[in-house]
Parts: sequence; C-alpha cells; structure tokens
Amino acid sequence: MSGDTAAAHVDQARLWDRHMRMARYGATPAGGVNRQALSDEDFAACRQLIDWGRELGLAPFTDDIGNLFLRLDAGEADVPPVLTGSHLDSQPTGGRFDGVYGVLAALEAVQALVESRVALRRPVEIVAWMNEEGSRFAPGMMGSSAFTGAVAPEAYFAVEDADGVSVAKALAAARAAFPEVAARPLRRKLAAYVEAHIEQGPLLERAGRTIGIVTGIQGKQTFRVTVRGQEAHAGTTPRRVRKDALLAAVAIIKALSLRCTDEDDLVKFTVGRLTVEPNAPSVVPGSVTFSIDVRHPESETLRALGEDIPEICRKEVLPCEVDIERLSSAASLRFPDGIRNCIASTAAKLQLAAMELPSAAGHDARFLNAVCPTGMVFVPCKDGISHNEAESAEPGDLAAGARVLAEVIATLAA
Amino acid sequence: MSGDTAAAHVDQARLWDRHMRMARYGATPAGGVNRQALSDEDFAACRQLIDWGRELGLAPFTDDIGNLFLRLDAGEADVPPVLTGSHLDSQPTGGRFDGVYGVLAALEAVQALVESRVALRRPVEIVAWMNEEGSRFAPGMMGSSAFTGAVAPEAYFAVEDADGVSVAKALAAARAAFPEVAARPLRRKLAAYVEAHIEQGPLLERAGRTIGIVTGIQGKQTFRVTVRGQEAHAGTTPRRVRKDALLAAVAIIKALSLRCTDEDDLVKFTVGRLTVEPNAPSVVPGSVTFSIDVRHPESETLRALGEDIPEICRKEVLPCEVDIERLSSAASLRFPDGIRNCIASTAAKLQLAAMELPSAAGHDARFLNAVCPTGMVFVPCKDGISHNEAESAEPGDLAAGARVLAEVIATLAA
Repeated sequence: MSGDTAAAHVDQARLWDRHMRMARYGATPAGGVNRQALSDEDFAACRQLIDWGRELGLAPFTDDIGNLFLRLDAGEADVPPVLTGSHLDSQPTGGRFDGVYGVLAALEAVQALVESRVALRRPVEIVAWMNEEGSRFAPGMMGSSAFTGAVAPEAYFAVEDADGVSVAKALAAARAAFPEVAARPLRRKLAAYVEAHIEQGPLLERAGRTIGIVTGIQGKQTFRVTVRGQEAHAGTTPRRVRKDALLAAVAIIKALSLRCTDEDDLVKFTVGRLTVEPNAPSVVPGSVTFSIDVRHPESETLRALGEDIPEICRKEVLPCEVDIERLSSAASLRFPDGIRNCIASTAAKLQLAAMELPSAAGHDARFLNAVCPTGMVFVPCKDGISHNEAESAEPGDLAAGARVLAEVIATLAA
Repeated sequence: MSGDTAAAHVDQARLWDRHMRMARYGATPAGGVNRQALSDEDFAACRQLIDWGRELGLAPFTDDIGNLFLRLDAGEADVPPVLTGSHLDSQPTGGRFDGVYGVLAALEAVQALVESRVALRRPVEIVAWMNEEGSRFAPGMMGSSAFTGAVAPEAYFAVEDADGVSVAKALAAARAAFPEVAARPLRRKLAAYVEAHIEQGPLLERAGRTIGIVTGIQGKQTFRVTVRGQEAHAGTTPRRVRKDALLAAVAIIKALSLRCTDEDDLVKFTVGRLTVEPNAPSVVPGSVTFSIDVRHPESETLRALGEDIPEICRKEVLPCEVDIERLSSAASLRFPDGIRNCIASTAAKLQLAAMELPSAAGHDARFLNAVCPTGMVFVPCKDGISHNEAESAEPGDLAAGARVLAEVIATLAA
C-alpha cells in the first residue's frame, strides 16, 4: 500500500498505548474499568481525549446532554460532518475496550487522515456519547438519543443516580470541569455516522476474521412469566390431581426453546432467571416465575416470535395458570447498504478477513441510524467476553479496525 | 348391629370432644397445633391421655426413649399384647388430627372394648410414640425405631434441638414430669400393631370412601442434581455455542417426568427445589441445582426408577455436565395379608365403604412392621391437606375408623 493512504498512517502501538492510558481512569484492581457517566473518572478520560485532540488541532465542543465532540475542519465548513466515535463510560465492572475503542479508533483514524494529508471535503468529528451504558443513570444511550431528537434532553435531567445526584446536576459539574469547551445545538445535521466497537460476542474469533461488517442491531423482547399452580405434599398427592408449577414451567420453556431453534442460529432465546415457590424438596411447587429474553436481527422474525410466546405459554401451562407480562420490545434495525458496502470494500482493499454479522448488543448507532447513513465496524474480543473486567482484545485487531475506519471516513468525507 | 360388639360402643361425640380438648395443648392462633416432642405442651397432652386411661383402669408405662403406653390387662397376663396408637407430637404448624387421631382412636377402641365387655385373651396397649415428626429433634420416629431395636436409643440421646437441649435432657424432664409412670424395657414382644391415621392425601375423599385399608408404606428416594453449564451473554452468544444449564435442567426434568408417568398414577415424582446461577435475565445460566423426590409403593419399581435417574440425567444434560447425588433411599414395605384382610372384612361387616391404598407418608408402623404383624387404617382428611394448621377431618369419619379399629383389636386379641 502507498504511504499516502490514511490506513498506512494508523499506528498500532500508539493506539494500544492510548487504550492503556485511558484504562487508568477508573482502573479496578482486577484489571478492568469502572468509569461511570459524568463521574470524575469520566471527566478525566474526556480531558485526556480533548488534550490528544488539541495536539492534532481538533476543536472540542459539547451540547446540552454532555456529549463531547472533537472537530477536524475540512475544505467546506458549512456541510454536515462525518461523525465517528462511541462512548467513554463503562459498566461498574467493565473492561478496557467496550466503548473506549470506538473513540480511540476514531481519534487514530482522524490522526491518520491528518498525517496522510488526504484531501477531505467534509469536516470529520469524533464523538464520545454521554452515558451509553446506563449503569449510573438509567436508561443508557442518553447522549445519542437526545442528540438525534429521539428523546428530549429535559426528559433525562431529573434522573438520579444511586446517591441521589441528578443528570442535571452532573451535567452542571461537567460544564464546570470544562469551561473552555463551547456548547453547540443538539440535532445537528450529519453526513454519516460510523462506529467501531469490539464485537462482545465470539463470532469473529470463531470464524478467524478480523473485521465485522455489522448488518444491523438485533431487536429484543423481554417478558416475565408467572406460572401459578398449587402447593401439595410430594409424598401423598397423585400426579393426576397435582398442579405442579415447575413441571408446567418446564413444559413452557421446552416448547419456547423448540420454537426458537432456527437452522441459521440467529434467534437468541434465554431464560436467565427462574424462581420457585416455596422451593422445598418435599413440596410440589406452587408458583414459578421466570424471565424470557428473545432477540433476532430481523424485526419481522422477532415480532412473530414475540407474538407466539404468550400462546405457547398458555398452551403448555395446563393444568396450571399463567400470567405473561411483556417488559420491553425494541425492533431490529438494518444499516443501509451504502455504508456496509463501503466497509466491505475497504476491508477487501486492506486485505483484512471480514464477515457480515449482526450486532447482538445495543449501541448508540441505533439512534444515529434514524437520522443519517450509519454503519458499524466490529473487531474481535477474546472469547466474546464483554461487560467484564476480563474483557480483552488484540492490538493488531484494534489497529485493523482503525485502518478500516480511517479509509471509510476518508471515502465518506471526500 | 348388636350392642354387644365393641364397635357399637364407639362414641362419636366423645371421640370428637377428646380431639378438641387435645388440640388445646399447643393450640396456635390459626387453629392448628404446635406440640413438639417432649415439650411442655406434649407433656400436657400425655398427662391428659394418662388421666383418661386411668378412668378406664389402664396402667401407664414408659421406656428409655420416652414412649407412653396405657395397658388394658386381659385373660392371659404373660402373652404379648396387641398394640395400637400413633403419636401426640406435631409439626410446628401442624393440625389437630395428624398422629393424635391414632392415639385417641386407640383410646376410644379400648374404651369400647371395656364397655362392651368383649372377652379378650391378650392384653391391649395404647401407645403414643415419642417424636414421630422429627421437627424438634431430627430424625423423626425416634420412639418406634428405638422400641423395635432398629436404632439404639443411645444414638439419639445427644441429638439437640434448636435451643441446644439434648434428647437426653428432654427425656430426663419427661421422667421428672411423670415420676409415677414406671419404665419397662424396649423391644418387648408384640402380638400385632395397628395404627389409625388420617390419610394426609386426597384418595379416600375423592373416591367417596370412609376406610382406607393401607397396603403398605411407599418408599422414597431423594437426589440432588447439579447441572454445570457456562455463563454467557444472552444477546451475543449463539445457541450452538451455548452451554445453557437451565435448558439442560429443563430437558432432564421433562425426561424424568415422562419416565415417572405411569398409567396407575402410583409414582410420585417431584422437583420441589430448583435454583439458578447467576439468575439474571440477560445471562445464560451457568449452573442449576435441583432436588428429586421419587416415591412408589412397590420397592422393586422404586428401585428401578432410582437406577434410571442418573442415566436419564447424563443423557439429557449435554452439552452441559451433571453431578447426581443420592441423598436418601428407603424401600417400600407391604403390610401382611392377615391384618389387611382383617381390616377389610371388619369394614365390610360394619358396612363402611373401604378401599385399599398405600401410605404415601412414613409412619411409626414402618418400624413396627419389622417386628410383628402390622397394619394401618386410614380415614379421610379434607382436601388431603396435612402438616398444615388447616388440617380437617369429619367426626363421623373419625368414629368410623375407631369402630374398625375396635373390632380389629377385638379380633387380634381374642
């Protein structure tokens, strides 16, 4: 490859070093990160990002929900920018790559663009979205949902953390910490959004691929099912007169599991939580409560699955009774072909082994997809482990993702 | 019926009244009984029984494990007596009939024998076995197991209750409370043992029968099964690479339940306790532990079931792993034809609707069956509910059982 491409200027050692330096902000004894949204640790990470940006001549900006932007100006000042980034906040026992990789890959890509002197028509902005994880303030993705107009920022201001600190108060602390950073409006126009992220699943690693071309973000429906039977003596009550809530729950879960067994292995069906009452060895269970978490990358398939669940529960529960409560429902989304093809052809050009795959987890890209052409690039993480202090990724894979990102941005901003 | 028969002297009102008076000792606000073995409440009930016995000229005796006997002498003094009774202790939230009915029916039967002046060759003794329930001191059936020689009484003396009081100390308190009651040896020879009891199940009530001719006591095997899978993210982990401990447990329980489904509805199969780790809605379960309680009146059938359980667990658990621990195994027993036929012909003679049925729960008769011809008479209890303050029985049914008992004892002691 020619030294003139942005990709050739991506520096694997520099990118890795920045990950290790970011991991100091909120470092946990077990080698992970606890960097909650709008915390002092988060502010320190933002300060570091701003400093690195300034070295490249990038101007920092914020907005009313506390997102942080670093802008690289280009040939035309008034056209919508290409946006790239992710988030700096983490789970309480999070790892060193979830979120921060997307921000540092964006910084590395922009630095490569600067160093390669590739001609850009559109400005490029790096973003660190506020509170993607939702662990300090619920729900997550506050920054991206407010920025895109999906939710009014005022709807989040009264949300409090476990210590009673509101989002409004934490945002005021952010403004006080960064008085030099100017605020800009929410809902600015964007040319495109591309987010790099560790996969948080095992597919790339198992397939031996480096680059994941994300087809979309799978939707999710969750339910709480309560089976009501009748407590009875395990020794004296004949089977035919029992109303065994556990056997009914077993029949339901078995039938749901069969319904969710697809040849393509795309449905994710999980009963993660199940409790039995009274939970005594010699008492026929009187009630069982369990969770259902079902996901699929295709919205229509997910919708159909979600519609079948209550019917299957009611059919299998006899002679007990069942209550089915739908707790949440998020449709699946598909990223547009343009960005996906751009990622695919870039990976091919860079001779990186790539594959298409859906994102099983939610990302800020969900909200951006509603307002501009959006795509995501995944890189492998060890054993698919994430939201865990053991989260791990290879320097070479991180750099490969940054190279793809740099070239994709160069294309989108050209 | 002739007024000369013992059955004709059974007094329904007197029998009911004695139940209500006994229910005062340890009465609970919810209408049940809390009368733990060797407690002050138990002593009060024993005192009441001794007093009622004395009115009939019955001499009280005890032994080294605290059983209480009331003896009706007969024609021959040195022949082994016919023994009848049950226990006066209760569960902590027990009812007014479990155990105490067998003792009061025995008293009523003996009173009827006395009043009818039926000629007896053998002495008849009423017994209240010490600690059948095993709720204050574990295990239960201490009195009958020590009396019959199945367990040396010394093996029980060091057992302590929740307050640290030993059986030895509680037995000393019993001797102090009843200094006038003479002790006799354990392991005395018996001509026969007959125990009346509420069914503690729904079969008689459902069949519209008054008298249960107990065929035997069903055996029981218990297991603890631990399924070990692998925790994984519910959103990102494909089905084919999951090791979902709950789905494996569901497959096992479903297969065990099918194996335990018999046309005659004699197998009792219960998974009463099940716990999931980490029990979070969005985490594929890493491990599941559950109990198995399986019972059947035929020892050979129970043995075969117990042998199949580990094989079924191992077959269904894949791709997870399983540990199977057998916690207990008690064989089923069958009462001898002689006593069963005597109960059946007596019920027929008294024109009481009767049916054969196994005892699903354990009773002191289990131990007596090893040393002398033994049988049991069941009467219905409301909705099969027992070990519960809501335990209920009909005065007419209780009297019918006492009439059968009186005639059976008359026959056995003649």
